[in-house]
Amino acid sequence: MAKGLILAIDAMGGDAAPEVTVAGAELFLAARPDASVRLHGDETQLKPLLSKSSDRIEIVHTDLYVTSDMKPSQALRRGKGSSMWNAIHDVKDGAAHASVSAGNTGALMAISMLVLRKMDGVHRPAMTAAWPTLRGRSVVLDVGANLEADAAQLVTFAIMGEAYARAILGIEKPTIGILNIGSEEMKGHDEIREAHEWLRNSGLDLAYHGFIEGDDISSGTVDVIVTDGFTGNVALKTGEGVARMLGMRVREALTGGILSKIGALLAMAGLKHLREQMNPSNVNGGVLLGLGGVSVKSHGGTDSRGFARACELAADLAASHFRDEVAANLEKIRQKGMAAE
Amino acid sequence: MAKGLILAIDAMGGDAAPEVTVAGAELFLAARPDASVRLHGDETQLKPLLSKSSDRIEIVHTDLYVTSDMKPSQALRRGKGSSMWNAIHDVKDGAAHASVSAGNTGALMAISMLVLRKMDGVHRPAMTAAWPTLRGRSVVLDVGANLEADAAQLVTFAIMGEAYARAILGIEKPTIGILNIGSEEMKGHDEIREAHEWLRNSGLDLAYHGFIEGDDISSGTVDVIVTDGFTGNVALKTGEGVARMLGMRVREALTGGILSKIGALLAMAGLKHLREQMNPSNVNGGVLLGLGGVSVKSHGGTDSRGFARACELAADLAASHFRDEVAANLEKIRQKGMAAE
Repeated sequence: MAKGLILAIDAMGGDAAPEVTVAGAELFLAARPDASVRLHGDETQLKPLLSKSSDRIEIVHTDLYVTSDMKPSQALRRGKGSSMWNAIHDVKDGAAHASVSAGNTGALMAISMLVLRKMDGVHRPAMTAAWPTLRGRSVVLDVGANLEADAAQLVTFAIMGEAYARAILGIEKPTIGILNIGSEEMKGHDEIREAHEWLRNSGLDLAYHGFIEGDDISSGTVDVIVTDGFTGNVALKTGEGVARMLGMRVREALTGGILSKIGALLAMAGLKHLREQMNPSNVNGGVLLGLGGVSVKSHGGTDSRGFARACELAADLAASHFRDEVAANLEKIRQKGMAAE
Repeated sequence: MAKGLILAIDAMGGDAAPEVTVAGAELFLAARPDASVRLHGDETQLKPLLSKSSDRIEIVHTDLYVTSDMKPSQALRRGKGSSMWNAIHDVKDGAAHASVSAGNTGALMAISMLVLRKMDGVHRPAMTAAWPTLRGRSVVLDVGANLEADAAQLVTFAIMGEAYARAILGIEKPTIGILNIGSEEMKGHDEIREAHEWLRNSGLDLAYHGFIEGDDISSGTVDVIVTDGFTGNVALKTGEGVARMLGMRVREALTGGILSKIGALLAMAGLKHLREQMNPSNVNGGVLLGLGGVSVKSHGGTDSRGFARACELAADLAASHFRDEVAANLEKIRQKGMAAE
């Protein structure tokens, strides 16, 4: 096994596993000569998929895997020894620096929380999503790990999101906004207003912007969008739905007549570039922040390039100062008397 | 004054009032030979804007108007006698069948509620939005009249949204879904789950589909999407933001090089049709449902065609059986023991 960064991969999770996960792992290794991977899954299936043998790939055999229809509670009871469980466990016992899975989201969150435990000072981990914007990319959290969030939890999300954006987007001083609605006097729930006041006056070295509204997400008004898991999940899926609808409409519009078809052919270079920018594979990977180790969730339906992208994200995060930065800020707010319940 | 349907218009509200409102009113009248309008506002400004005199247009003079930066409480204190107030008051005292304003949303909601009062059995009116989908158009409510909604209120929103979709979309039996997130066991707040159970077993003659997720909105999975005002407002604005970003990206892509430009020219017919379908003017108009009369909110930045569209919506709703249908269903649920607080 080579030195350097080691990634534990659940090779059996995802819609097109293990083909996509193995191909994605190889793409990742090609881009990162310093890295190696531990592929967890059925050796008889995995071995033939490897394009060549490499001393940077180790297959760790298991017959078990978490299915996509398992409930989190079932995964906790029956998932022990599965490819997902073993990959996450690698992070816990130091065999890997981070884990990646494209499997069942609920199961992944539950197993990650059980195996990796929460960081000191974090009471509710939060799931992130990377959002393509007019200015580049922003981080939205929480997108579904929790249904609700009180003020202290929102502040913790802000602290984690900020360090995370620095780690994976390479922004020195990420700006932070709290998602709210703009209807004047009755602006925002109590929790949101309290978190807002707190971040305003925290004295922490954070670039807190203030409240933002839904349309600010795609504008890229801030780098980190803080919200509760219910609202964040609805926003994320609503945005995906609108993008899918418009994509279909543009395709229809460009293939509707012979002139349109010729035009679309000519415009192809520009459209291809756009597809590239907006390709979900390029922004693939969500992370359950606030755990004792890095566990990355790849989209279940991603292709090998998207899976490789999730692996890179895991590697970037594992190599960053994320946990130290978060721990330092959480300690500061603890001293100032705002503790999450 | 001609007989038939009478619309009261706040001619002074909106970013480009009174030009857009007067032109919009004339467009509306051209399409509806049976209708007439009462234009509330500054006669010296309004008169020169009329393209011709018509016995179907009556100008009702006032010097006062509600500004865009007024808070709802200020509008209630100082708005009496303003063009917005007077237009809504027309509905109350029977001088008009419905009112339309492109002015300050918060003020419009507050004045509408004060002047028109709530319908019997409705404790929280809800603001609607029309959402373009792959299948046509859907209605989302609440998009911001309230921050929260309990189970009984969500059920009331479902009943109002259903009758509203029938009135303005012409769908005989609109389907209804409650917006939720899909993260397995912890699916949904208590209020949502309770409303879901209730609609499932209500015995009302409603086509209740069940839970939907954010991406179902644009797919057109259901005709009526029920949610609380905070979530609905975030979803609406997030969707608008994604659409705006993608629109800009497509434009960039199609003007990025000489081939793309020629291509875009050739593809123009198709793209124009798309712009038409997605034009916000075509879906303009939100209604505060659950009041003692029809008060329609036009987007503040709309053009004259969009304003005319909002007028048509107001006319359709005023001419429909909306209130009778809602009253009948509310009475039924009252008898079954589910009363909103």
